[in-house]
Amino acid sequence: MSFQRVTIIGLGLLGGSVGLAIAEFLPGCATTGYDADPAVRRRAAERGLVGRVCETAAEAVSDAELVIFCVPVGAMENAACEVADALPAGVIVTDVGSSKEAVGEALRAALPHATVIPAHPVAGTERSGPDAGFPHLFRHRWCILTPPADADPEAVDKVAAFWKALGADVELMDGAHHDLVLAVTSHIPHLIAYTIVGTASDLEQVTRSEVIKYSAGGFRDFTRIAASDPTMWRDVFLTNREAVLEMLGRFTEDLTALQRAIRRSDGDALFELFTRTRDIRRSIVEQGQDDARPDFGRSDHG
Amino acid sequence: MSFQRVTIIGLGLLGGSVGLAIAEFLPGCATTGYDADPAVRRRAAERGLVGRVCETAAEAVSDAELVIFCVPVGAMENAACEVADALPAGVIVTDVGSSKEAVGEALRAALPHATVIPAHPVAGTERSGPDAGFPHLFRHRWCILTPPADADPEAVDKVAAFWKALGADVELMDGAHHDLVLAVTSHIPHLIAYTIVGTASDLEQVTRSEVIKYSAGGFRDFTRIAASDPTMWRDVFLTNREAVLEMLGRFTEDLTALQRAIRRSDGDALFELFTRTRDIRRSIVEQGQDDARPDFGRSDHG
Repeated sequence: MSFQRVTIIGLGLLGGSVGLAIAEFLPGCATTGYDADPAVRRRAAERGLVGRVCETAAEAVSDAELVIFCVPVGAMENAACEVADALPAGVIVTDVGSSKEAVGEALRAALPHATVIPAHPVAGTERSGPDAGFPHLFRHRWCILTPPADADPEAVDKVAAFWKALGADVELMDGAHHDLVLAVTSHIPHLIAYTIVGTASDLEQVTRSEVIKYSAGGFRDFTRIAASDPTMWRDVFLTNREAVLEMLGRFTEDLTALQRAIRRSDGDALFELFTRTRDIRRSIVEQGQDDARPDFGRSDHG
Repeated sequence: MSFQRVTIIGLGLLGGSVGLAIAEFLPGCATTGYDADPAVRRRAAERGLVGRVCETAAEAVSDAELVIFCVPVGAMENAACEVADALPAGVIVTDVGSSKEAVGEALRAALPHATVIPAHPVAGTERSGPDAGFPHLFRHRWCILTPPADADPEAVDKVAAFWKALGADVELMDGAHHDLVLAVTSHIPHLIAYTIVGTASDLEQVTRSEVIKYSAGGFRDFTRIAASDPTMWRDVFLTNREAVLEMLGRFTEDLTALQRAIRRSDGDALFELFTRTRDIRRSIVEQGQDDARPDFGRSDHG
C-alpha cells in the first residue's frame, strides 16, 4: 500500500468522497481531516468521512505521509500556508483542483520543502458539502496527475497507485495542457450552462414558471450543471482564465457561424453539424464515461 | 373516451411512443400508422407500434377520427398534402412538432377542411427511429396545445383529453408564445450543445480522444443532447428562426458579459450569477420535471 496515514484538508464533496473511498478500498490506511468551517467538521465527524476530524489543519497533518487539499482552487494557497510549519519531513502533497497550473504553483510556493504532485480526479456531481460525498465517486473516472518536470518518479508512482486504489484510471499530463483540455470538457460547458440558466431567468417575455414547466425539452440538463458549487467554479474561472478565454473564443466563433446559417436558412450547414456531433456521443458511451440509457434513464421504459 | 380510431403518420420516437401509449392507456382505441420509409414501416409492424401499419398514408387515414402527424416539422406540409384527399369528414388533425406557428399554418393551408389543433408534447430522448419509442414517454410531461383563436372548443377538449389519457399534463398557449418559450427551454439549449460538441471535435490543441476521455467534467451532458435527431433539429431551427435568433441574441449578450468578468477577474460577478442559477434547478426538481438524484443517478452511491 502506498500510504499508511493520509490527511484530507477540506471535507466537502471531493474531500468526503476521498475519505469514504479510503475507508472502503484502503482499510489499513488511517485518515485525519480538517475543514475551516466548524459545521462541516461536525458533520464530517458524524458521517465518519475520516477516522479523526481535527480542530486545526496543523494538527491534522502532523504525522501525515500524504496530504490532499480538497478546497476550492482559490483557497489552496491559504490552506497550504496554514500547514506549512507543521508538515512532517518527506510528506507528499497533492490536491483535487480543477485547474492545475495555478494550483501547482501556489502549492509549490507555499510548501517549498514538500513533494508536490498535483492531481485532478475528473469526477463530481452538482452537490456540494459534507453530505454530498460517496465512496464510489472516482470509479472508472480519470484522475490526471500533473507532476512538474523534475518531480520524484517514486512519489508520482505512489500518488498514482493511491488513486488507482480508489477506483480511478490515472493519466499523466503537463499542467498547461491539462488546463486547456479541461477548459473544453468541463469549464466551458459549466460557463455556458450558468449563462443560459441566467439568461432564461432574466427574460421579460417568458416567465420563470414557464421556463421551469417546459424544461424537459433540454434546458433541465443545463440547470443540473448550473447548480454546481459557486465558490468552486468562480475560482476555476479566475485561475484558468487564459485557457477558458481561448476556448470561449473558439466556441463563440462557431456559434456565430451557426447563427448565420439559421438567419440564412442554410439547412445543409445545420444538418452537417448535427450529424457530425453524434459520433462523439457514441465514443463516450463506448468508453464507459456515460450511461447509454436514453435520457440518462430518467424516462421510465416499463 | 375521446377517439375510437387514431392514425399516426410518422413512426419514429414520438409516433411510436404515441402508438404504444394508446395501446397501454386507451386499449379500446384502434390505431393505424404510416411512415414514408419502408424499413420503418416493417420495424413498426414487428414492434406493434400501431394496430395496423398501412402501405400508404391515404389508406392509414381513411376512417380516422384523429390524425397525428409525428414527422419532422419541415415534412409536415408534404405529409399533410399526401392525405388531404383521403381525410374523412369531421376529422381532427394534430401533431407533435416542436415549433408551432409554422406547423399550424402549414397544416391549416394543406388541410382547409379539417379541424387542426396543433400540439407539442415536451418530451423526448436523444434516440430516434422506430426502436426508440416507449409508452411512458409522456408521463408527467407537459403537452402544449396551440389552437387557433377560432378553434372549435369541443375539438380542443377532445385533443386535451387524449393527451391526458396518455399521461401528459395539458396547457393551452398562443402559438407565437409557445415558440418563444420553447426557444429558451429547448431550442437554444440544443443549439448550444451542438455547437460546443462541434467546437470540441475541431480543436487542434486538444485531441478528440482527450475530449472523450475527460468528458465526465460536464461535456458529456452536452453530447447527449447533441446526439438528437439531425433532421428534426434542422427543421426546428429553420421553422422557429425568429424566436431562436432573438433568444440567441440575449444569450450571447450575457455570455459576453461573463467573458468580460473573467477577463477582468471579477470574481463577485461570477459568484453572483453562479449562486442565482441554483434556485431554478430546485424548482425544476420540486415540480417533477427532473430527477433529484445527483448526476442523474449515474454515479453509484452504493
